[in-house]
Amino acid sequence: NSYFKIAVLPGDGIGPEVVSESIKVLDAVAEVFQCQFQYSYGLMGAEAIFKTGDPLPDETLKICKDSDAVLFGAIGDPVFDNNPEAKVRPEQGLLKLRKELGLYANIRPLKTYPSLIDKSPLKREIIEGTDILIFRELVSGIYFGEKFTDPDGKYAYDVCKYSTEDIIPIAHMAFKEAEKRKKKLTLIDKANVLDTSRLWRKTCQKIALQYPDVQLEYIFVDNAAMQLVLNPKQFDVILTENMFGDIISDEASVIGGSIGLLPSASIGEENALFEPIHGSYPQAKGKGIANPVASILSTAMMLDYLELPEAADKLRRAVEHAIENRCVTVDLNTEQHYTTSEVGSFIADYI
Amino acid sequence: NSYFKIAVLPGDGIGPEVVSESIKVLDAVAEVFQCQFQYSYGLMGAEAIFKTGDPLPDETLKICKDSDAVLFGAIGDPVFDNNPEAKVRPEQGLLKLRKELGLYANIRPLKTYPSLIDKSPLKREIIEGTDILIFRELVSGIYFGEKFTDPDGKYAYDVCKYSTEDIIPIAHMAFKEAEKRKKKLTLIDKANVLDTSRLWRKTCQKIALQYPDVQLEYIFVDNAAMQLVLNPKQFDVILTENMFGDIISDEASVIGGSIGLLPSASIGEENALFEPIHGSYPQAKGKGIANPVASILSTAMMLDYLELPEAADKLRRAVEHAIENRCVTVDLNTEQHYTTSEVGSFIADYI
Ligand SMILES: CC(C)[C@H](C(=O)O)[C@@H](O)C(=O)O
Ligand SMILES: CC(C)[C@H](C(=O)O)[C@@H](O)C(=O)O
Repeated sequence: NSYFKIAVLPGDGIGPEVVSESIKVLDAVAEVFQCQFQYSYGLMGAEAIFKTGDPLPDETLKICKDSDAVLFGAIGDPVFDNNPEAKVRPEQGLLKLRKELGLYANIRPLKTYPSLIDKSPLKREIIEGTDILIFRELVSGIYFGEKFTDPDGKYAYDVCKYSTEDIIPIAHMAFKEAEKRKKKLTLIDKANVLDTSRLWRKTCQKIALQYPDVQLEYIFVDNAAMQLVLNPKQFDVILTENMFGDIISDEASVIGGSIGLLPSASIGEENALFEPIHGSYPQAKGKGIANPVASILSTAMMLDYLELPEAADKLRRAVEHAIENRCVTVDLNTEQHYTTSEVGSFIADYI
Repeated sequence: NSYFKIAVLPGDGIGPEVVSESIKVLDAVAEVFQCQFQYSYGLMGAEAIFKTGDPLPDETLKICKDSDAVLFGAIGDPVFDNNPEAKVRPEQGLLKLRKELGLYANIRPLKTYPSLIDKSPLKREIIEGTDILIFRELVSGIYFGEKFTDPDGKYAYDVCKYSTEDIIPIAHMAFKEAEKRKKKLTLIDKANVLDTSRLWRKTCQKIALQYPDVQLEYIFVDNAAMQLVLNPKQFDVILTENMFGDIISDEASVIGGSIGLLPSASIGEENALFEPIHGSYPQAKGKGIANPVASILSTAMMLDYLELPEAADKLRRAVEHAIENRCVTVDLNTEQHYTTSEVGSFIADYI
């Protein structure tokens, strides 16, 4: 297969700028690797609310369901962040999209770049050589459980619910990746307090029997939050539930000093979405200073998913080439730096 | 009042060793400041399970309720950590104690010690001058909500519930402390996803009107987990719910490089408990290498609570004196170090 339908959701803030560099790079890939990408653009997030009143218009959802993969920028706008009473919010669009597309596994690879290591808030010797792959469950747990606020505003609750069916597919995915790596899988939970965490432990314990090469370890989430800062190198593959994954993966993303470089994939049975992990970063919007690399590396993850591993590798090498040759945005080099579009073009040209 | 009933729960691991140094120091305080401490010892944690089958025997609870303050060591034992099926666990004792004593506010001051700053995994310029006070709600939320595992083990749930009554007292406490400090209070939540978080925001927003000098800010928990590593100095007083507080306060505890020094207080209407934030650290048990300073500084928080501020200050000065004179345990100086008991005696002698 050499023809792919790509849904493109630029979203808010710097989303459109970085996504358009990904398209530039994909066009280069198409030329060199003789394949075709057909792009369908959809509205999403604050942008979609302003134009249609809905953070995820039906039209957008349809485009995504019809696609082979979704390329996503970012959502979020200060207008909503500063108004806790807002009834319609950009985030609702993202959560609905995850659920509707069944994107149960959010995957984040974290590596340190030797040339950027000194940008980290952590000391070189702590982080050098860190290489972590995080699997976060994305369509269940407290995000999607029953929610209630009593009409008088006296109390509220959120239910965190998990069934073994929610856990089994992502656990297999994580075990399989661990087999290809250092064969260590760490489940992060709070099994000394939560019933759902104990269900995660038991379910993973059973699955572990099918992966005798992989060493399964457990760590409480509070301890994990400490260990990620004290000694991130101890981790190989991490598996965790939705809310803990939200916190832990964001914490982990800053240890390498290169959040503008980190990609992510959200995978389901029939759909997949790729997005940079940095958010909409509204302060930088339209200034040409946003780093397009995270979006471009998310595109590389998409190429892997589309079974174009050579193209994905080429793209990753192109990014490394840009970084080595210091063709980077201002976040990585305050003295000599290039615009979002210059970096994108440099990478596309190399391909 | 110069006569105080202190319940002493040494607990597991290094708990007994560090608590006994606190008692040594309290005896010195009693002599110098002409007051009297009457100690009643209680069993708690794994120790209590081994001896009585119950992690919190009624006798212990009674001693605590009758006391003016509780001095607590640590709980936890690898025997239980490695067995997710264990029906009776040390943690249940601690959670029950918090609930029964109504200890709704867990308070953790975090400061960097100039002479220890290079022990931190973070760079000096990131952490130098960090001074944070964390308020974690301790007797509600997902810790104490309804829990359920279906008998077939197919699904489980945990309910996170909050009422305004759970939020109001700790919010006032946090605002009052913020007034005495840099007048900035940061509420950590996930109001873009959780109903309970939105209840926290609205409740705090209302309370803020009574503290016009204090600037109230909101931050999502995932972003907070990043910001604590990127720029901890931006925080002054932090307020958060139980589970987020568990994760965030442990993460924050490692940034200063001196977890062996950090105290905590858990306060209720009628009771209060003081404990070091390091855990039971079973590997170090009985070796005389545990750092007693966190327990001793927790004792200083207890003296403040008992309205003996001069004694509390003296104790803090004694600890600083020990650190300046390098009378410290091996965690702080691998070359020249002293035993747990030597450090305790040095501090007691100074008083
Ligand atoms: C925007 C928000 C709802 C979302 C989440 O919490 O999942 C974001 O933080 C993320 O991690 O993708
Ligand atoms: C032991 C455990 C139940 C406890 C908690 O999660 O509250 C501990 O981590 C703490 O922070 O005191």
